[in-house]
Parts: sequence; structure tokens; C-alpha cells
Amino acid sequence: MRNNNRKNDEMREVKVTKNYIIHPEGSVLIEFGNTKVICNATIEEKIPRWLKMDNSSKGIHSGWIAAEYSMLPRATNTRVQRESIKGKISGRTMEIQRLIGRSLRAVIDLEKLGDRTIMVDCDVIQADGGTRTASITGAYLAVELAIEKLIDENKLKEIPIKSKVAAISVGKVRNEIILDLDYEEDSAADVDMNIIMTDKGEFVEIQGTGEEATFTQNELLKFIELSKNAFNKLFTL
Amino acid sequence: MRNNNRKNDEMREVKVTKNYIIHPEGSVLIEFGNTKVICNATIEEKIPRWLKMDNSSKGIHSGWIAAEYSMLPRATNTRVQRESIKGKISGRTMEIQRLIGRSLRAVIDLEKLGDRTIMVDCDVIQADGGTRTASITGAYLAVELAIEKLIDENKLKEIPIKSKVAAISVGKVRNEIILDLDYEEDSAADVDMNIIMTDKGEFVEIQGTGEEATFTQNELLKFIELSKNAFNKLFTL
Amino acid sequence: MRNNNRKNDEMREVKVTKNYIIHPEGSVLIEFGNTKVICNATIEEKIPRWLKMDNSSKGIHSGWIAAEYSMLPRATNTRVQRESIKGKISGRTMEIQRLIGRSLRAVIDLEKLGDRTIMVDCDVIQADGGTRTASITGAYLAVELAIEKLIDENKLKEIPIKSKVAAISVGKVRNEIILDLDYEEDSAADVDMNIIMTDKGEFVEIQGTGEEATFTQNELLKFIELSKNAFNKLFTL
Amino acid sequence: MRNNNRKNDEMREVKVTKNYIIHPEGSVLIEFGNTKVICNATIEEKIPRWLKMDNSSKGIHSGWIAAEYSMLPRATNTRVQRESIKGKISGRTMEIQRLIGRSLRAVIDLEKLGDRTIMVDCDVIQADGGTRTASITGAYLAVELAIEKLIDENKLKEIPIKSKVAAISVGKVRNEIILDLDYEEDSAADVDMNIIMTDKGEFVEIQGTGEEATFTQNELLKFIELSKNAFNKLFTL
Amino acid sequence: MRNNNRKNDEMREVKVTKNYIIHPEGSVLIEFGNTKVICNATIEEKIPRWLKMDNSSKGIHSGWIAAEYSMLPRATNTRVQRESIKGKISGRTMEIQRLIGRSLRAVIDLEKLGDRTIMVDCDVIQADGGTRTASITGAYLAVELAIEKLIDENKLKEIPIKSKVAAISVGKVRNEIILDLDYEEDSAADVDMNIIMTDKGEFVEIQGTGEEATFTQNELLKFIELSKNAFNKLFTL
Amino acid sequence: MRNNNRKNDEMREVKVTKNYIIHPEGSVLIEFGNTKVICNATIEEKIPRWLKMDNSSKGIHSGWIAAEYSMLPRATNTRVQRESIKGKISGRTMEIQRLIGRSLRAVIDLEKLGDRTIMVDCDVIQADGGTRTASITGAYLAVELAIEKLIDENKLKEIPIKSKVAAISVGKVRNEIILDLDYEEDSAADVDMNIIMTDKGEFVEIQGTGEEATFTQNELLKFIELSKNAFNKLFTL
Repeated sequence: MRNNNRKNDEMREVKVTKNYIIHPEGSVLIEFGNTKVICNATIEEKIPRWLKMDNSSKGIHSGWIAAEYSMLPRATNTRVQRESIKGKISGRTMEIQRLIGRSLRAVIDLEKLGDRTIMVDCDVIQADGGTRTASITGAYLAVELAIEKLIDENKLKEIPIKSKVAAISVGKVRNEIILDLDYEEDSAADVDMNIIMTDKGEFVEIQGTGEEATFTQNELLKFIELSKNAFNKLFTL
Repeated sequence: MRNNNRKNDEMREVKVTKNYIIHPEGSVLIEFGNTKVICNATIEEKIPRWLKMDNSSKGIHSGWIAAEYSMLPRATNTRVQRESIKGKISGRTMEIQRLIGRSLRAVIDLEKLGDRTIMVDCDVIQADGGTRTASITGAYLAVELAIEKLIDENKLKEIPIKSKVAAISVGKVRNEIILDLDYEEDSAADVDMNIIMTDKGEFVEIQGTGEEATFTQNELLKFIELSKNAFNKLFTL
Repeated sequence: MRNNNRKNDEMREVKVTKNYIIHPEGSVLIEFGNTKVICNATIEEKIPRWLKMDNSSKGIHSGWIAAEYSMLPRATNTRVQRESIKGKISGRTMEIQRLIGRSLRAVIDLEKLGDRTIMVDCDVIQADGGTRTASITGAYLAVELAIEKLIDENKLKEIPIKSKVAAISVGKVRNEIILDLDYEEDSAADVDMNIIMTDKGEFVEIQGTGEEATFTQNELLKFIELSKNAFNKLFTL
Repeated sequence: MRNNNRKNDEMREVKVTKNYIIHPEGSVLIEFGNTKVICNATIEEKIPRWLKMDNSSKGIHSGWIAAEYSMLPRATNTRVQRESIKGKISGRTMEIQRLIGRSLRAVIDLEKLGDRTIMVDCDVIQADGGTRTASITGAYLAVELAIEKLIDENKLKEIPIKSKVAAISVGKVRNEIILDLDYEEDSAADVDMNIIMTDKGEFVEIQGTGEEATFTQNELLKFIELSKNAFNKLFTL
Repeated sequence: MRNNNRKNDEMREVKVTKNYIIHPEGSVLIEFGNTKVICNATIEEKIPRWLKMDNSSKGIHSGWIAAEYSMLPRATNTRVQRESIKGKISGRTMEIQRLIGRSLRAVIDLEKLGDRTIMVDCDVIQADGGTRTASITGAYLAVELAIEKLIDENKLKEIPIKSKVAAISVGKVRNEIILDLDYEEDSAADVDMNIIMTDKGEFVEIQGTGEEATFTQNELLKFIELSKNAFNKLFTL
Repeated sequence: MRNNNRKNDEMREVKVTKNYIIHPEGSVLIEFGNTKVICNATIEEKIPRWLKMDNSSKGIHSGWIAAEYSMLPRATNTRVQRESIKGKISGRTMEIQRLIGRSLRAVIDLEKLGDRTIMVDCDVIQADGGTRTASITGAYLAVELAIEKLIDENKLKEIPIKSKVAAISVGKVRNEIILDLDYEEDSAADVDMNIIMTDKGEFVEIQGTGEEATFTQNELLKFIELSKNAFNKLFTL
């Protein structure tokens, strides 16, 4: 039996608090059960140097979206040393923030965004599994708010959003295929898959990993099937 | 006139939410107006190596208390680069976390704490001036909760707290001596002073700085006088 | 038309030179067309500290397998600055070496490996797309050689290999679904997928990414279908 | 009794050797007893980038003064690892060099300095307590020499110095209030205070710290009183 | 007796594979016995900033040549940690790459090279002593190829090469003076000398080091004599 | 004509101030003209971990000697950024400190030194060419003092010094072969050679470098000849 009597195909409660922090152009506190992530979107009226060169070689004015991800040291059950103290970003952090950035760029028309960058900070203040899927889902909502602000202030004429995007985890734990794994389930999982999908039902990214285990094509299809329950709910947020 | 019609000797509203994060041994969200800091205290049943050597040379079993301080990139009005990305801690961060640690060690009997370390993480999620005074005040409250837990679990026989401690800022802005500066006032201040005091009315630390300016002994005494209003309120929390 | 008249479902020529470098316990030069990777497996008769603690809490003697990945500065068409000079590993490098490590751990029985670590170094001396799939495939072969050596030297009684593993890329480029992308194709791809599979036809990992694009479930199934051609060939190596 | 029969309100002998090093624009060897610091002031005809932006937004031409502080590894009784080897500056070093910089900026009119930076290097070649107060006092003298040179070379029309500045430590050791602590006294101090004052008798900075101890307002006033003896002497240098 | 019955004045077999890697402007695999180094020369149509300033102060258009050196982790008998993981370059690596750069700059007319940089990467894929002498010799050959390409493409009118350059090691091992030390000999050497010479018989650099030992002027002359055998062969390559 | 009417074969005035700093076991201020270096030798009653393992495999008790080298930022005519701020040691610094260490180890019997390390810090407080030769010469004298102290304190029975060591530079500047180059000469030199010799007339190290130039065997012999004048004087110190 899952914690709180959850069924295998049941998500944890999802809560969204918009405009959680007062300074950012877009800010959201997103909660997937006990997992809580502050997602802040910052608009910068400039683009990275490499993109400027790339744009000018193509004669276009494309913008950029990137993300950074971090956890407070006591977001987790035991304290984790700060990456600022270690002086470097872990591989896990890098993977997650690259994933968040790609997911957002897949659904935003960067040319319509123009010569500006949206930087999204996902800071996990409390973790209980699914921090990357909560981050992607919250990051999208923060970007939506920031873009609304650009529209309101007449800095953008046209909404550059091609689709909404959200993310959910599925996995195989003790031979059960389950949705939205909490920390305890994630630690015991043989297979762990993150699915990132648009509101049009198309994949943005799919990452399935056997943890010292493998999975069949049949299982892959079941994972995908299960995730669809979640996306129906997530896109009504 | 100050924001929100505050009088010169008036603090901003202070709010404390205990047990804000579920994992730490002590956790507090403290708010001084719009300044919001999550203070998490972690108990570690070990002490730093240098202390172990120092203790054994003295034949004692002293514990340790230290703090780390950080701000989310968008805690402020414009985004600040993460220290984990820069790969090093700024001088400002170091100064603040050393100050928090010293303030706590001044009021906790480290020998009574025994062979354990309390590490307090102060993470500013929203900043509007006074983040270091809010952090010290919140850090103390988080430590109190963590020590209560040690007592409850029978790991400590005796409360090792010698006094309560809290902190407040005072300053000279446009020739007015004012209490508890917000960000806008802090930026305009000629003199900026942080006073850290126990509930017995003794100083733990006093730091007064002229910002391209100086101050007289008479002004010093006024700063101290003004702070007493604040401490009366802070120690009733 | 693809370079060298390749068909959409055709791999590049794969060459394997065993015992390429004389010092390592297992060494392979693997070539996928113009992509050339030196894969060296090192046996260390010790395990990481975190694993030692983890093992002792579980009462087992599990070993470990990890990988490091790097490219020579001129493996690519324009020179890339060394990560040793930059003083840090890029996110891309981290992702790839974590992926190689997970792929190997999925097919090796770590308990049977005993108290030892296999560290695999994948150094790309010439790159033309598919460096991560060539690295995984070559790394597995280097590990196989190193394990043979352990068996020959009577340090291991039983072969700890559960299955063989190999990897291949598939993608969508200019609306064609193609196998084993070279650099030029990879740069133009809308969807890029890496499939890592055992010789028993099970997935170890599947990673599909829309590059500022999305993909349907139907396309996902076509990607997987196409990859099966490759695995038949790769496992006869 | 204090070392060398010093009285509680007695400073150690202070020696100043001007033009100690031949290359800098201003150079001083300052000695507070056995504490010896080389203070070198460098004039750079440029200002930091952030100041340039700040100046241009305000339409002014303000200069800048900053300081760096370091100790030779054997300035102390046991060898301390170089910060260049550790690859990072300690919190203590940061605090001290920020303090020296603030102290100098409080007494120099930065607008009169114009578009130039004075960088002061304080290198402790031998330490016996009071390295920060000796550094501030010596740094001011080195800046004075460098400014004289600017005046002599007609690069500056008007002396931009508003007051002289010097610093002294006071403290409470074994219940005695004493002036100018040496290393042995500093290590035993319950309260340690650094006072930085102008020749007009105004405070530039005051920092009092209880080391696992506290102090009363009455003691604070005694500390200040005691320091006045020192400033009378220091400003006759 | 030396390995493979080598005589004291006998070099190991030297092999050169030109155009070993397809991307660089000049590429060579050089082998001194079991020592194998990939030397890749990259032409960059720009010069370092410090040289630009230096050139403009002198009114000239001088180019630059520099080198980087690295070893694969298993180039050696036991695995060496990557410098990218350690986050810094070792003193040994620095010394070698500075030496390679100086050797090349001594024989190339930098003014004739014009506003461009040649960066040579020497990556040791297998090591058995003499990696620095093989690197210098191979680096020169890679530069020669890159310069030929500049001439062929009409980017350079005149060959800027003043002489050829090559390098060889000599040493004193168990009281024998020997040429071209392999790893085993190098480890046992009392004196180790690297001689870098042009095809005109002039020294570019000479570095002789007693390893916890010393050497006489007479021995110095014998070392030099012995090296001449090697240079005759190396310059016929 | 050379500065101060020096002849080509004339050294600058050499001054040695013993026991310059009070804390180290051996301390010397050495001056070669305007070049001034503080050399402090520290005795540590422990050896590096790698040596401990090496010793135990050989069944011996060998000690260790190493050196660190640094320059104050304004030791030179223009200010150089601190390596502690840059966060890394330059190649030049590494080369010099490795050279000093090797020179000392060549003349001290490390087995007689026993299980201890001598760490020598060479800090250049004023530079005018020849900082590495002054450092080696001063470092040796500081080590001598530290060893005397070990003998005096009965920690060592036998003096472990095999010979004295000193160093001098020679070079070719504007076609003149000259001794002990100052900064201005060093900058103009075509060939620069550092010779490190024992008082028995044997070489410890010889490093000759053509700076975008070469030198003949005949010139090499003249360099060596010229250096002998210097060593006669240096060993009478």
C-alpha cells in the first residue's frame, strides 16, 4: 500500500501559489504533496553572447530561456552540503537544470520572444520525490506569468507560447507500476521515468532509467499510459 | 516620512512560523516586514575535527554551533548570480554567517551541548533590508526548537541556553535616527549599525559602520537607546 | 540523401580494436564511422567510502562501476577549451559520464564483483556524432576485457555480467526517421533519442529529447523499431 | 601583569618606515610592537566597471579605494596554509580587507579623487595581535603618500582627504579592560573591540564582539574611553 | 642491460603518422617506442589580448604560439586522476606545456606569422618515459603541417620557420650515461636532462636536474655529446 | 653599460639578515641588489602521506623538503593580482617552487632528516630580477638555521647537509654575456640561464632558455665559466 492510501495511478495533491515572491517578473510556489519548489522567472533584456553571434550569422532575433535548480541544505531528511561551499555544481543539479531549460524552450517560440532571456530559478525548499517534475511544471507557470507581464507592459505584442508543458514521474517499484513517486518510492524503484508532455499530447522529453535493472517495451507503454492521467489534471491548473 | 507611515522608533511587523519545513530538527520562517528568511537548525552527532583536537587537549567535551547564510537569486529586486555558479562565497555572505554563528555561540553553553554540532541554515527567500538581523533572530528560535527536541528525546539532560538572543538594525538616514531599516532606507543610510543583544540587556555584538561618513559618541548612544524598544518586543516572541 | 549514401536504417561502419593501450586492465578503441573513442577500464581493489558505509549497513560486499568522459580539444571541428583549464566539468560531460556509468551498472552484478571498483575512461580522440553511444558500447567491451583478466588471474570465480549492453542513437531530421546520426545530422535534428539496450532486448535507458520541438507516441515507437537493426549488429561484435 | 610591564592603558611602541618598498606609489612598514605590516598603495588610472556604470547614471566622476590583506604563512607561530594554495580567501581575510577599505573610503572624498582607484595591499610579515588595526593605520599612511605623489605630479589639484584615520583594539581579558591587545591577550579575551576613529574624534567604525561572552553598556563606554589615549598618540605619527 | 637490448647511445624507434586526426590544421601521432602522443595544431585567426596591446605599443603584428599538454588517465601504469576533476593543472603539466611553447616560439618567426595564434595540443595516450621530448618533436611537426596549410591556402606568403626543432632526453642511471630514457630508466635516474636543439645545432633549451644528486661539468659535456646522435636521426624524419 | 657601472662578470651586492622573522625555525632576509626575499623555514614533525607509504614499502624513514614561492602584489613595478584572488597558482610560480624544492633536496640527506618535513616559504617583498636565484640561495640558508635548531634541541644527532647550495643567473643581453641579471636586463635577454651549484663545484640544476632565440655550445660554456665568479662569493656568506 502507498503512503496516504494513494492508488497506483493517483497523483499527490498539487497546489500552486501564484506571485509567491514579490520581486520576480513571474513567481510560483508549486507543491506536489510534501515537495515544495519556489519557481521564479526573471526577464532580462539581453541575450547570451554566443546567441548574439549565432543570431547575427542567421539574421534573426531569437531570445533564450534557461533554468537553474537548487535545494536548500535541509530540504531533505539529512543535511546536504551547499554547492556554493563545495564550489561546484553536482552532475545531478546540472542534469536537472538542463532538462528544465530544454522543456521550456520546446514550447516557447524563441524568435517571438525577441532579444531577451527568461531565466527561471527553481529552488526546492522541501523535498519528497519528484522535485524535477514539480520544477518543470512550476517553471512553466512562472514563465507564463512573466510573459503576461511583458504583454501587459506592451513589451511583447504576441504571446510566444506554442503549448503548455508539464511533467510527471512514473516508475516500477516492487513490481508495481506507479504514478508520481514520493521519496521513499523513488529510493526503492527499479525503473524511474520522467515524462514531459505538452497539452497537445506530444512528448517534449522522455527519460527512462533502469537502476541496476532493465525494462521491456511493454512496460514502457504502460508507463506512458499511466502518465496520461496526470497530464489531464496538471493542465487544468 | 517612512514607508507605511512607520515612526522612527517603530519596527516592522515581525512574524514567526514555527516548524515551517518538516525535515529539520528546528525550523522557523521569520518575517521582518517583507524580509522573509527560512532558518533551519540541524543537529549533527559529531563535532569538527579541529574542535576534537582542541577538546582533547583541554580534557573537555565541548560542542559547536555554526551558521550558513544564502539568498535566493530573486530574493532581491534584480537577480543576483548564485554563489554555487560563481564557485565561491562572497565576502558579504561570509561576514554574515560568521556573525550569526558567533551570536549563537555567545548564548549557548557549548560544553553543556556535548559532542554535537548545531548547524543553522538561514536562507533568505525574500529580501527588504535587515536580512542579517532577521536571520540572527530566527536562527536563535530554530536552535531553541532543536534543543527542545534533544531534551524531549532525552539526548540532553539540561538546557544549555544561557540567554535568548535577538538582533535589530538602527541607522542614520537623511539625518534621522531610525529603527529597523528597510532596503530603501539601508541604501540611503550614512550610518548603519547592527545590535545583537540578550534578553538580559547585554551586548553580544555591536557593529556600527559609517558609509563614507562618520558618527559621534552621542549618536552611538542614541542608536543604542532606540534599539531597546525593539528588543522588548523581540523577546516576547 | 545521407553522407556516403547511407540509408535511413543503416549504421556507420563499427570497428573495435582490442588491447589498444597497453597499461589498462581492459582497453578498446571503438569507431562508429569517423567517431573514435579510446575506452580504458581500470580495476581498483577498493570501493568508494560512501559505498563502504552503505555496504556495511546492509551487510553485503558490493562493488562499483563508474565512468569518466572527455574529448580532446581538437576532436571536433573547432577547438574546444579543456575542462582542466576551465577548472570545471561541463553539464554535458557530467550527463554523459553518469549515463555511461548507469548503463554498465545495469548489466553487471555489483555484488558478484566484490570489493572492487571498475573505472572506465572514455576519451574521444575524434568526434563525428554519436560519441555517447560509441562510448557506452566501447566501455562495455573494455569492462568485459577487464573482467576476463580478473577471471584469468583467479581474482573472480564467477563472471558477474548479467547481459551485454550497447547503445545507438536515432532521430528525426528533416522529417526523416534515421539511425546512428553523424554530427551534421545531429545538429539538424528536431528529435534526438539515445537507446541503450541489452542483448536480451530489454531497455537499460531511453532518452528522447525534442530540440525546440516535440514528438508523438507513434514516432517514439518508430524510433525504437529502427534501433533494433543496430542492436542486432552491435551484439555480434 | 602584561608582557613587558605594559599598563592596561598603554599602547605598544608604534614605528613607521615610510617608502619601505621602492615600486609602489605609497609604501609604509608599520609596526605595533612585534606586529609588522607592509602597506603598499597603488594608484590605478581606472575605476571598477560597476562604479563606471553607477557614476554615469549619477553624472559624477567618483573614484574608488579598496584593500587586500594577507599574512605570510609564517607570520604566525605555527605555519598557516597559503590562501593561494587553498584556492580561496578565508572569511577572516575577507572581513578584514572589507573593513580596511570602508575605513579609508570614510575619510577620502571619492569624487575629488576622480576617475582613479587606490588599491592598498596590507601584507603582514610578522603577527602578534592587532594586525587589522595596524593595517588600517598603515594603509591610511600609505594612501597619504600616494596622494602626495598625485599632487606633486599635478594629477590632482586638491587634497581629497577629509580627515586622518587610525585604529586600535581594546578588550576585556581576565576582567581587566586593556588597550592594544597582543596575540596572547587576544586569545584569552572575553570581549574584543576594534575602534576606528578620525583625528576629529568621530567614529568611522566600531566593532565589539563577545567571544562566547557578553558585555554591558557600561563596559562599552569604558572601552571607548580607553581608546582615546591611543588615538592621541596615533595621530601624532 | 637496457630493455630490448638497447645500447646506451641508441634511441627507441621513432614513428610519425601525419594527419592522424581529421579536424586539426596540423595533426601528428608521434611514437618514441611505447610513448605515444597525439599532437594537434590549431590555427586561430586572432591573438591573445595582452599581445594585441603589446603589439600596438610596438607598432608590429606579431603572432603567438602556445601549447597544452595532458595525459589520458590510463596512459600510465596506474590510473592518474584527471586534472579536470581536480579542477586544476599540476605543476608538472604547467612546466611541460610552457616548455613546449617556448621551444616552438624559438624557431618560428612570430612577426611573419602575423595576427594569428597556433595552439598545439599534446595529448599523451600511452606513456613510457620521454613524453615531453616526444611532445616537443611532434608538436613541431604538427606546426609544420599547419603552416603548410596556411601557405597552400595563400593565407601566408612566406614560411615563418627559422629552423626545425626536436628534443631528446639523456641521463645518468646506475652510473651509465644513456640516451632516450624509458619510464623504468627515468624512475631510477640520478640525473635527468632534456635537450632541445635546432637542425642547425644550436640549443633552444637545456634543462638538467640532479634528482637528490649532482653532476659535474664533465658529465654535462658527455650528456650533450650523446644527444647529438639522436638529433641527427630526428631531423631526418 | 650596466646599471650602477656593474661589469659583465660582477654580481650585485648580496646581503643576508639572519633571524629576520621571529616565529620560524629558520628565517633569512636575502637581498641581491634591489631584489629582497624573506625565506622562512618551518620544521614539521610529520611527512606527506605519499612519502609515508613510499617509505614503508622501502622500510626506511626518509623526510621531505618542499618550498613555496610568492611575490607581494607590489613587489614589481606594476601591481600583479594575488594568486589567492585568482584562485590558482600560475605556471611560473609552480616552476619556481618546484625548482627551489629540488635544489634543497639535492644537498640534504633526507634519510638523515628522519620523519620530518622542512617547508620553506620564499616571499619576494621587492623584485628586480633574479628572484628565483635569490630564493634558492636564501632558502638554503634558512634551512641551515632550522637544522642548527634541530641539532641544538637534540632532535637530530647528525647534520644531514651534504653540501651547501646557491644559485645565480647568467644571460646574453645585446650580445654581451653577463652575470646576475637585473629586471631590465632580464627583459631584454636573448638567453637566460639559471645555474644551481654546490660548494663542491657540482651542478644541482642547469636551465638555459633561448627567448625566441638559440645559443651555441660555446656560449653555454661561457655562461658556466662566468657563474663560477659568483659561486665563490656566494659560498663565503
